[in-house]
Amino acid sequence: LSRKPDAPGSSYRDSGVDIDAGQEAVRLMHSAVRSTWDAGVLGQYGAFAGLYAQSSREGAGDILAVTIDGVGTKVKVAVMCGRYDTVGQDLVNHCVNDLLVQRARPLLFADYFASGKIEPAVVAAAVGGMAEACRAAGCNLIAGETAEMPGVYAPGEIDIAGCMIGLAKGEELEGAEPVAPGDVLLGLESSGLHTNGYSLARRLLFEKSGYGVDTHLPELGCTVGEELLKIHRPYFPLLHAFIGDPRLHGLAHLTGGGFYDNIARILPEDCGARIEKGSWAVPPVFRLLQSIGDLPDGEAYRVFNMGIGMVLAVDPTHVHELAGLITRLGCPAHLIGEVTEGEPRVVVE
Amino acid sequence: LSRKPDAPGSSYRDSGVDIDAGQEAVRLMHSAVRSTWDAGVLGQYGAFAGLYAQSSREGAGDILAVTIDGVGTKVKVAVMCGRYDTVGQDLVNHCVNDLLVQRARPLLFADYFASGKIEPAVVAAAVGGMAEACRAAGCNLIAGETAEMPGVYAPGEIDIAGCMIGLAKGEELEGAEPVAPGDVLLGLESSGLHTNGYSLARRLLFEKSGYGVDTHLPELGCTVGEELLKIHRPYFPLLHAFIGDPRLHGLAHLTGGGFYDNIARILPEDCGARIEKGSWAVPPVFRLLQSIGDLPDGEAYRVFNMGIGMVLAVDPTHVHELAGLITRLGCPAHLIGEVTEGEPRVVVE
Repeated sequence: LSRKPDAPGSSYRDSGVDIDAGQEAVRLMHSAVRSTWDAGVLGQYGAFAGLYAQSSREGAGDILAVTIDGVGTKVKVAVMCGRYDTVGQDLVNHCVNDLLVQRARPLLFADYFASGKIEPAVVAAAVGGMAEACRAAGCNLIAGETAEMPGVYAPGEIDIAGCMIGLAKGEELEGAEPVAPGDVLLGLESSGLHTNGYSLARRLLFEKSGYGVDTHLPELGCTVGEELLKIHRPYFPLLHAFIGDPRLHGLAHLTGGGFYDNIARILPEDCGARIEKGSWAVPPVFRLLQSIGDLPDGEAYRVFNMGIGMVLAVDPTHVHELAGLITRLGCPAHLIGEVTEGEPRVVVE
Repeated sequence: LSRKPDAPGSSYRDSGVDIDAGQEAVRLMHSAVRSTWDAGVLGQYGAFAGLYAQSSREGAGDILAVTIDGVGTKVKVAVMCGRYDTVGQDLVNHCVNDLLVQRARPLLFADYFASGKIEPAVVAAAVGGMAEACRAAGCNLIAGETAEMPGVYAPGEIDIAGCMIGLAKGEELEGAEPVAPGDVLLGLESSGLHTNGYSLARRLLFEKSGYGVDTHLPELGCTVGEELLKIHRPYFPLLHAFIGDPRLHGLAHLTGGGFYDNIARILPEDCGARIEKGSWAVPPVFRLLQSIGDLPDGEAYRVFNMGIGMVLAVDPTHVHELAGLITRLGCPAHLIGEVTEGEPRVVVE
């Protein structure tokens, strides 16, 4: 495993870099990281790069899928709350969902943690959260970098990013029928804001409304901090059995760009999409944000997921069956719209 | 290809996130990124994850090697100089070297760029540099994330990180003879500081000595900025033919931790290493840094690479032949020490 603190030197500490803190962070992470490893991991913790034998996932496909993500300024909320494990889970789950919509299964994860000053307990909590989410997705946390960068980050701030590598099967990619007019759009519920719209949400809640992370809001049933740190839902555990399902014509992960940009990414040139407002109950946090910011729907459905984290384009003859199956698996699925003929444009009305 | 700005929304700009700048950055990067693609890249620019068919690299091995890196506070020097392409190359070359020492060949790269405010030209320059270095290494830049994170980064600062995925062959890994007492350590020259020791170097040059990036120093033959931005040397173009060579018992990339930590990473339990000072000419920049900081050797050889970027443990009967070959390929190789019996400890004397 490649896991090394960036910082060298002993009295190097004088320049703001603390090698002992880096090594302590690595030590704290060790068992969490190892807990994600399956029999395919070769080599040792501390090598220059992590090695993985693909033969241990025989039959998982030989197309590599790669995604890299951060969690945006949700890290600022983590810092405000002093809670770092959940953003680690967010990061992994975001990647898991990006692979899922390309019909790939998680295999390997590499993380990057950076801050102006390394606090071993903070790194260990964040990476511990990543490891927990990796285990849930059957993904090996195989490489990492902890960077102490005095002066680059604002005091007290951190950033995390991660790259996930998955495997997809050529026959499943080729066998998938294209998204076509008449397909029904099935919306799977999100757990909250996931990892998008945090710069706006923070401005509305903390600056405009003057709330703190500890402010309890009756309409949310929890504190502002608890609401904002709700963990990005991973849809892989729910949908992995449907990856090669011919009834599933397309999948879109609602991240930055909301309904408009993300559903458009799976539309063929000659198809549009129509989303019907009111076909699901928009959760209180989104109604609150819209109300504080006086946001028109066109803005809200672009910045936020509005309660829907994943959209599936489904063969209309099977949609009720699939919606029922997924709902029974634990995630309510709603018929939220349809694929239309016309320009590849998404209309929310 | 997965390449999406993090920022959604139109009037979202009010909260410090500029979606148009993000999209402009993506547009500027497009051709540079595509220029790295070989026939194995599937799917389209803008997908949720990049897809790559391994069948297009038949025979390259089925062991995946993964490394993730940043360039430390070298990014601060890039910001001071207003030059962003070279740190992009540094990032890729750092990863290339980390894979090389695990006997893996570069295949895919994913980048993360973050800043408090997205300047499209800056992102495009940095990613353009990454693409240039990827092309040189035969590596596909297949995924990326550009994150605008107001408040997380200090004003004007940026950070970059990247994950590289390579392929290694089981027979080459297993066929490699172990590092053993009597092996000669061959040191390959670095191009400068590479990506390590920048927090200390910046403190000594800018704070303690009061130099600016434009200060021309006769002993360096260039400005301080030019010296500090010299590009991390990639050793893959030089050494790729030797990856499976049985004369090569081990490779160490001198990154954070310098001679001590990195050479120790390739020593078996019962082997030490002795590095002989004076067996190569320490370049002026390191002598300058040592002199300004009054750094003892024990500190200098831990923080900096002192002119050696890669160390090879070589079968003693073939060392002169190999050193000659590598030197003729364009990188001077010096006999800098040997593997000894004893504790796995590195001595520089």
